[in-house]
This record gives sequence, C-alpha cells and structure tokens, in this order.
Amino acid sequence: MKKIGYLCVFVMLGLAHCEENYKKDIGSGPLVIRYPENNEKMCIDEEVQLKCTSWRFGVEANNLGPWKTIPEECDDYVEDYMLGKGYKLDLEMVSKEAGAFAASHELVNDGKDIWVFDVDETLLSNLPYYSEHGFGLELFDHIEFDKWVEKGIAPAIQASLELYQEVANLGYKIFLLTGRSIRHKGVTIENLVRSGFHDWEKLIMRNPEDHAKLATIFKSEKRNEMEKGGFRIVGNSGDQWSDLLGSSMSIRSFKLPNPMYYIP
Amino acid sequence: MKKIGYLCVFVMLGLAHCEENYKKDIGSGPLVIRYPENNEKMCIDEEVQLKCTSWRFGVEANNLGPWKTIPEECDDYVEDYMLGKGYKLDLEMVSKEAGAFAASHELVNDGKDIWVFDVDETLLSNLPYYSEHGFGLELFDHIEFDKWVEKGIAPAIQASLELYQEVANLGYKIFLLTGRSIRHKGVTIENLVRSGFHDWEKLIMRNPEDHAKLATIFKSEKRNEMEKGGFRIVGNSGDQWSDLLGSSMSIRSFKLPNPMYYIP
Repeated sequence: MKKIGYLCVFVMLGLAHCEENYKKDIGSGPLVIRYPENNEKMCIDEEVQLKCTSWRFGVEANNLGPWKTIPEECDDYVEDYMLGKGYKLDLEMVSKEAGAFAASHELVNDGKDIWVFDVDETLLSNLPYYSEHGFGLELFDHIEFDKWVEKGIAPAIQASLELYQEVANLGYKIFLLTGRSIRHKGVTIENLVRSGFHDWEKLIMRNPEDHAKLATIFKSEKRNEMEKGGFRIVGNSGDQWSDLLGSSMSIRSFKLPNPMYYIP
Repeated sequence: MKKIGYLCVFVMLGLAHCEENYKKDIGSGPLVIRYPENNEKMCIDEEVQLKCTSWRFGVEANNLGPWKTIPEECDDYVEDYMLGKGYKLDLEMVSKEAGAFAASHELVNDGKDIWVFDVDETLLSNLPYYSEHGFGLELFDHIEFDKWVEKGIAPAIQASLELYQEVANLGYKIFLLTGRSIRHKGVTIENLVRSGFHDWEKLIMRNPEDHAKLATIFKSEKRNEMEKGGFRIVGNSGDQWSDLLGSSMSIRSFKLPNPMYYIP
C-alpha cells in the first residue's frame, strides 16, 4: 500500500473533466464550471478515496444518521463524482431501471396509475448552485439558495427528463411532490417548463402549515391524500430517502444519487 | 479517455490482496483464497469499473429489479471489492453507524427493546463458499450451498460481531431472523457460537410452511409477531433489502453491503 502513495482520481477512475461532457451531463443551464487550478488539487489519497466511497455507499443505502455537510476530507471526492462520469452514469442507471419497471407494470389505465417525482436533484439540477458552494461542504444557506431558486434557471437532469417523458407516454399521471415552498410556485413552474417538463397532473408544494414538518412526514401525508383520491402510486423517484420512505409508499421506489446534502 | 486505456484495479484502488489482510477481513474461517494467476486477469477496463460501481450503487440503494447473477462484465470488479478493502470498510462504516444509533437511542429497559440481525452475510460470512462459485456469477445452487451450510464453518463478520456485542451490552435483546430452513438449526447454532455469537433471545428460521414465502413477507410476519409480543424493534441489520423493508419495520435499518446475490 505504502508503495502506491497518492494517485490522481481523474487518472484512477478516468473522470473526464471536459466541458463538452459536462454540459451534456447536467442539461443546458448556464452552469459555471470550476476547473481545478492545477492537477495536484485533484489528487486524492487512495485511502481517502476508499473512505469517501464507503461514506457515499452509506448515504445511498440510507445507513447514515442525519448529516449537515459532507465530510471535510471528501470535498474533492464529491466534486469529482458530481462533475465526472460517475454521477451521470448513476443517474442513467436509475432512470433505466425505473423505465423498465414502468414499462413492465400493468396499468389499469383508468387515469389513476401515477408516478411521483421529486423536483430538486431529481428533475432539476441545482449543481450550478452547489458548485459555487462547496458541493455540500458549506452549511446549507436558505437565503442564498432561495435566491438561486428564484432565478428559475436550474437545468433538467437529462436522464430524468427521459424517464419523465417515458412514463407519461406509457399513460402514468405525473405528480410532482416537492419540499419547495408554495412561495416559489410561479418560478418553479416556469423553470420546469423551460427545462422541458410538461403536462404534469399536479404540483404539490409546501404550504405555510407544512414548513415545520419533516419531509418524510409531509410527503407521506401528501401520498396518503393521493391514495384517498383513488390514485395508485406505482413509482416514486427522488434523490432523498425522505422522498421515498414513510407511509403510502409506491410499489417501487427509485433513489437518485445525491452525496451533497441530506433532508430528513 | 482513450489515452488511459486499461488500468489495474489493484493499483487504482490500492486493493491489497495479501493473505494477512484477507484473513482479518472475514474472520478466522478456513478460507481458500484464490489469487489471480497473473496480474493481467485483474486489470479492469476503466469504463467497466465505472459501470460496475454504478451497478453496485444500484444494488445498495435498492434501485434494481430482482437479479439472479451479477453482470458478467463485473466479475473481476465484484471479486476485487469483496477481497479488497472496499467491502471491509463498508462493513465497518455500517456497523459504526448502527452502534452510534444504538447508543443514542433511549431504551425503556423493560427487556422489550430489541435489535434484529439477519444471519448470512450479516453475522456470518459465506465468502469462502462464494469465492469458489464466482462471487455471484454462477446461478445460485441450493444443493451445493446447503452442503456448505451444513459444514458450519462460516466465519464471523468482524464488524458485525463487534456491533452484536455492543448492542447486547447496551441492553438490547437480540433476535436472529434468518431465511435459513429450520433443518439447519443445529449446525447454525453451532456455527454462530463457534464464531463468537452468544446469548441471543430467539433464533427464528423458516418452517416448512414458510418456504414458499418471499423473504420480505416471511420477515415482515415474524417482525409483526415480535411487536405483538410487546417488543419494540429499534434496529435491524441485514444485507438484503428484504431483511429490512415490509411491515413492522425497525426505527432505523442498516443495510450491509452485498453485491453477490439478491433475495426478494
């Protein structure tokens, strides 16, 4: 082990930081790409690489307790993952699996088969914001993030856009269930439409009385209402476990990758 | 990308295939270690490495539909992961998180706070068996696997043994809930005790009438009975999502890594 020492991550995993790939990764938004100033910055100790991969596995398997920022030692790791091929591949994988399930499931076709999508880091990418805020290394700043949301320029996550269109074409009604406040309703609709999302059945956002609720509770309540309305929740796509777990769960849930932040 | 071409995994991730480390990884069992015949066999195309990592995250985040064998292109990847540092680190991470939660949770201390453990790939490691059967590349062979189980020599997963002792010391009652048939009861108890597991409250195995049930159903029914018995299921550790999901779920679940097989 000692003999190997430091290895560059972009060499190890072949993460290509080329602008062309990157633009394709996160849609057509006005993303500001931060390149490392020199290659040395991108070099990650192999032990750190292993530990951060383990941490990311803990995140995605829902093994970790609530966390507020990414581990300090994983800052380069998360940046590399988000800007490299790993994130893109993971998004494509989950979208492909969801699409295969959606197609294999037998719809009743009475307009009551539904697919639930979360919005942030599921349909829309806030990577342009997070790339300017340490990829999860900085403590979440509501005020700054709200300013970003109000710009309405979050790009589509390409793989999710394809899934969205696929399930719509299959005949599922689409419900958007987001933790965003109803205050951002106008700009959220504009942003979604501008990014290629159309014809959803309902956009559900937090009302003032929902703000104190944990996302798991808020989203479970809303899914409950869907079921009471006679809808059958076949699929649910979200980047947070709080999008997926709780009551009135979907038949199959699809966890999109997100090593940048955690919402309980 | 093309410039980089093939890279050796054991160089890329510093996976140490030394006997000393390996023995420590999976306990004291009579494991037969298969070394690659030459280094070339261990070289994995970087694209394959990325794709298999993506597949593994799909497994661990429960995004994949039922699968019977690992993807053929991921055979070396899974072998490297299981025999290298990655698997060990992931086991330690999940055990550490579970232990921290167990310690932070306030017990009622009436003997009704319980922790549920699965057995295979959770407390006991069948890696010696799977290392002889392609690490999940071969279709599961009940007869061959039963012969292995009857040997009763599966080593303890060290990180799980530590968690087991920790939760026992904290005052949790321990329930072992396994998909193993009651036919293997004697040898399972012997194997567990020989590997350092003692003083569980109850070992629950499949009776003949349970054999046709999916693991999710069987395990949910058994957790239901625990709750009816007045027990509070605080934690649940298992390597399959079917150990953890369903009804009567624990307050917190802990998914141990297992890219070798899937049980619905």
